[in-house]
Amino acid sequence: MSTFHITVAELAERFGLEFRGDGGRVIDGVATLASAGPSQLSFLSNTKYAAQLTGTGAGVVVMREENVADSPVAALVARDPYVAYAKIAVLFERKPAAPHGIHPSAVVAASARVSPTASIGPCCVIEDDAVVEDGVVLGPHCIVGPDCTVGAQSRLVARVTLVASVTLGKRVLVHPGAVIGSDGFGLAFDRDHWIKLPQLGGVRIGDDCEIGANTTIDRGALDDTVLEEDVRLDNQIQIAHNVYIGAHTAMAGCAAVAGSAKIGRYCMIGGNAGVLGHLELGDRVNITAKSLVTHSIREPGEYASGIPLQESRLWRRNAARFKHLDEYVRRISALEKDKNNE
Amino acid sequence: MSTFHITVAELAERFGLEFRGDGGRVIDGVATLASAGPSQLSFLSNTKYAAQLTGTGAGVVVMREENVADSPVAALVARDPYVAYAKIAVLFERKPAAPHGIHPSAVVAASARVSPTASIGPCCVIEDDAVVEDGVVLGPHCIVGPDCTVGAQSRLVARVTLVASVTLGKRVLVHPGAVIGSDGFGLAFDRDHWIKLPQLGGVRIGDDCEIGANTTIDRGALDDTVLEEDVRLDNQIQIAHNVYIGAHTAMAGCAAVAGSAKIGRYCMIGGNAGVLGHLELGDRVNITAKSLVTHSIREPGEYASGIPLQESRLWRRNAARFKHLDEYVRRISALEKDKNNE
Amino acid sequence: MSTFHITVAELAERFGLEFRGDGGRVIDGVATLASAGPSQLSFLSNTKYAAQLTGTGAGVVVMREENVADSPVAALVARDPYVAYAKIAVLFERKPAAPHGIHPSAVVAASARVSPTASIGPCCVIEDDAVVEDGVVLGPHCIVGPDCTVGAQSRLVARVTLVASVTLGKRVLVHPGAVIGSDGFGLAFDRDHWIKLPQLGGVRIGDDCEIGANTTIDRGALDDTVLEEDVRLDNQIQIAHNVYIGAHTAMAGCAAVAGSAKIGRYCMIGGNAGVLGHLELGDRVNITAKSLVTHSIREPGEYASGIPLQESRLWRRNAARFKHLDEYVRRISALEKDKNNE
Repeated sequence: MSTFHITVAELAERFGLEFRGDGGRVIDGVATLASAGPSQLSFLSNTKYAAQLTGTGAGVVVMREENVADSPVAALVARDPYVAYAKIAVLFERKPAAPHGIHPSAVVAASARVSPTASIGPCCVIEDDAVVEDGVVLGPHCIVGPDCTVGAQSRLVARVTLVASVTLGKRVLVHPGAVIGSDGFGLAFDRDHWIKLPQLGGVRIGDDCEIGANTTIDRGALDDTVLEEDVRLDNQIQIAHNVYIGAHTAMAGCAAVAGSAKIGRYCMIGGNAGVLGHLELGDRVNITAKSLVTHSIREPGEYASGIPLQESRLWRRNAARFKHLDEYVRRISALEKDKNNE
Repeated sequence: MSTFHITVAELAERFGLEFRGDGGRVIDGVATLASAGPSQLSFLSNTKYAAQLTGTGAGVVVMREENVADSPVAALVARDPYVAYAKIAVLFERKPAAPHGIHPSAVVAASARVSPTASIGPCCVIEDDAVVEDGVVLGPHCIVGPDCTVGAQSRLVARVTLVASVTLGKRVLVHPGAVIGSDGFGLAFDRDHWIKLPQLGGVRIGDDCEIGANTTIDRGALDDTVLEEDVRLDNQIQIAHNVYIGAHTAMAGCAAVAGSAKIGRYCMIGGNAGVLGHLELGDRVNITAKSLVTHSIREPGEYASGIPLQESRLWRRNAARFKHLDEYVRRISALEKDKNNE
Repeated sequence: MSTFHITVAELAERFGLEFRGDGGRVIDGVATLASAGPSQLSFLSNTKYAAQLTGTGAGVVVMREENVADSPVAALVARDPYVAYAKIAVLFERKPAAPHGIHPSAVVAASARVSPTASIGPCCVIEDDAVVEDGVVLGPHCIVGPDCTVGAQSRLVARVTLVASVTLGKRVLVHPGAVIGSDGFGLAFDRDHWIKLPQLGGVRIGDDCEIGANTTIDRGALDDTVLEEDVRLDNQIQIAHNVYIGAHTAMAGCAAVAGSAKIGRYCMIGGNAGVLGHLELGDRVNITAKSLVTHSIREPGEYASGIPLQESRLWRRNAARFKHLDEYVRRISALEKDKNNE
């Protein structure tokens, strides 16, 4: 696997951490506490896994000071072991081979500009007036449509479609099957049939964003759809036309945001949660999984909708009652009134 | 951008509208009220944006008669400004270049029939006995599987997959990542394992339908899955095998319809709403976002399920109570009974 | 269509069934009770369709003993007609032509190993150290990424992406647009921005699994994401990193499972249902459509959440009341207390 080697002491120095135990131990990879071997680094962040520390076979473990006493192996001490581990683990990631230049099977329009330091994989198609900047890696089967720009050091893993008028910032990472810049769902009802509204805007995606597999982001109708920097979207997310997402907001898989909604910075949108069109969410608003946001939210905090899971037999009784909840409340009020009149 | 130019008076004549103000003004594009410049057309439909009219820099604005008095610029008067705008905006849409003929990187089966007026983009694959009619545009990376037909003037934007036995009508628009004609999810449980039921039907899609990015429509098990004309599907919608959707029905992103459900004409299905299998929805049934349709619906109207969003702290208390709702109703009944026995 | 022919008596013998009526009738296809002609076989499993039996024009119908008296045509008698039909119907399935060998437009890395009995379609890309075993069929536009293995007799219908470190067992069927082995959504929050955790694990998929169109399955962070044998996933399902799914479990369209959840054997997960991260579901747990699993489940059985659909006018009243449910319960308790104090 990886051929990169580094000692525990070198890791400590490189990442500004203290170490305990054998600083000379050579590390060549990362693994879980349960599976790591003597040349691998692991981490303990969630205290739920503390019991696994005592039995670990890892060469070194990143942990908080408070766990050091229980460690049978060398320790790298960090205030936030998860963050420290994330930074260290990158060292051991095997980078895909990405030779400079354009694969002979790729089709590049004459008017496109492709940096000589970019890597364009097999069967890629780069269309009119597209720009691919320095150090970009396009894996196999990517399409960069007309008037699209892929910013420096960005990576489209494979089979990514930038439809038209899409601008990616620097170091953007896009996973397979993602479609960015498709037409928004804009229709006008003309007596007895639908008329399509031309979708003429673009998509602007900031630096350091990550877009998950099979996620879709529509172009704006007139103005652009916008993701500020460091927005993180998981798989199968749907972002409709003219949505605006603030920096550092993260959304879990299958979330969906309807047209022209505006979402603040540092928000967390749970899996399969939805936001209705034209709403505004302020900064640091968290929405739990599968909730539907039906009104704008100004206050930071966590918001939820939905019903707890029950055995179907019990659930059915309660759900049937829900259909008459208003009536029950009136009956409570009637009882209270009777009581007060006694 | 666009090189198309037209005067306000010419627009009025072409679309059967009245105009007020400078009919000689030349228009070369469209934009929002807030961003339009003096050679651009905008529109005012939603009265929520009326305040933007007074400050607009647009050359002309499509609006209702009642707004004309407040307009600082030329006006095109329409009963439904959104519909009128939709028709006008098409003029300014920049059409993708689509030269007649087959790109040299495309792979076309000997038994396929491709019209000489069709445009087949890079890396397209057209398989046995497929038919591509006049004026069709296949963007890059489209697959037209065996026995599929793409009707005249249809456009597959890019990376569309017609798997097998799919027939598209005329002027159908399909967005990237859509998969039409994949196997339905048909399984029989044979004591201790699953057996797959062959999926032998096709998909028939009527004229003027639009299919969103990464939407999936399965082929029928025996009979076909059917979309009548002018059905409009947003992104990431799932249509299972043998579903039948009536003309002019529209579905928002991430909606899903289970097997053999039959949906009427002029229905509106909200984002991430679901319809269970084998149900029937009549004409003009609207389902709100994220609702689950659990029984057939004959009456036109709007239907909903779900729970309103609350701060999690409050929501948790209410949700916990839901698990005992049936018990509470019994307690209300007991109180009422006691009262009546007094 | 199919050129395969077989008599009713031969079918009976081949599948160990009894027949009634004309054993010499020649059958060359399958169809529904309503549409089958005299050379076609149909089936009656759901008694809801029993009325269609009397009018069928089929040559023979697979049915239970109890329906034979009502049949106007020949019968094949089966305890489970759906399972028997499933086995028979396979005979009449037209298999896609799949010539051995590698299409000239495919791009195969020098270090990849492709069996001479595999069929590699147009524009496929097979990357470093990938293995494609005997009898595999890759339809057009499939990508087999580095270190991936496609087990013998597996079929990737078209446009399937195996990103990296994915191992498919034997006879695995994957539908178009599926992405397997994409990065998991692993992020650490470092004061004011996100850091990505390298996703270094793989995906292991057992024999006889089926993966639907546009479904996504992420690679593990360190250990692998695992599907045991005969797991059946419908379209647009999201399986996050390090999920483990037991054998014979089936999930309907748009279901989603969050990171590190462990799901048992023989579970049934309904359409658009969700399972939160790190939960455990035992064997034979069924979750109804659109339900959210918020806690681990050990007992087999059916579980649900959600609210029944109502006309919006009624629903709105009940939903508004839900926001105060806790208060209402307190009011019931107060009434009861008052009553007991009387």
